[in-house]
Amino acid sequence: MKNEVEKLLINYKTLEQFKRFKEYGNQELSMMEDLQNNIVENNSESPFYGIYVGHHLIARMSLYKVSAKYDAYFKPPQDYLELWKLEVLPDYRGRHYGKALVDFAKSFQLPIKTNPRINSHGFWEKMGFQKAKYEMERDLGENPLIWMPEGVEEKEQ
Amino acid sequence: MKNEVEKLLINYKTLEQFKRFKEYGNQELSMMEDLQNNIVENNSESPFYGIYVGHHLIARMSLYKVSAKYDAYFKPPQDYLELWKLEVLPDYRGRHYGKALVDFAKSFQLPIKTNPRINSHGFWEKMGFQKAKYEMERDLGENPLIWMPEGVEEKEQ
Repeated sequence: MKNEVEKLLINYKTLEQFKRFKEYGNQELSMMEDLQNNIVENNSESPFYGIYVGHHLIARMSLYKVSAKYDAYFKPPQDYLELWKLEVLPDYRGRHYGKALVDFAKSFQLPIKTNPRINSHGFWEKMGFQKAKYEMERDLGENPLIWMPEGVEEKEQ
Repeated sequence: MKNEVEKLLINYKTLEQFKRFKEYGNQELSMMEDLQNNIVENNSESPFYGIYVGHHLIARMSLYKVSAKYDAYFKPPQDYLELWKLEVLPDYRGRHYGKALVDFAKSFQLPIKTNPRINSHGFWEKMGFQKAKYEMERDLGENPLIWMPEGVEEKEQ
């Protein structure tokens, strides 16, 4: 396999590999239950993208396209990507796998919003992300970061 | 001062004390800017509640009432409280200050939703919170926990 970003399919092998990521949570548990209960088919699409080195999944992220009608971040209001669970396994850090995933997300040429984990701001800044102006009723406990392709601006408050 | 939960007012002293909490972020920075620019008055209300020991703020949380029309968690749809940034300073942990804050939030007798930090599930379980059934389009990267007073149920999917 090549070190390229690929869309991950829901199956027992992928879900097993997910367990090595720190941000394993309700999302993965719910995918596992849906698979076990035949609510989703084996190898159905997931919102996850990942990078394999050999047969090992060593980096991943989730991407979801939010419809323009729910957009509270950009001007004009438009479809944007919510990016979460970006994570590279410890042994593979510092080799630009995180950047490869972010570049992949940017390639859709839609604005991107993410909620960074504590202490990850340096990374996101290098990726060209900026703090969204904080609005309590929208952001509550979040510290959203946004990235905008040419021609898109942040919504005014 | 007594060890009681009190509503925190926005002023330079409180904002300075906030810096000792790990989850200091955009919300606090934005409050500081609003104060400096006279967008909010000194001692205006904040969504934060806290506990003082002597003159030291040693625990805090944010609470915000979300209107029933945005409720995607409970049955019947109703006003609920979003709780975030619950945090007790390290030297004061294990003395039930966290529980005091959660009990205060429960005293409004509204359902509560929170997004726990990694490794805090044990605490929330003791507080009677349960995992909300994961819905990707609603929860994305979140692992929401909910608490319901008598007579309230989780929304069906």
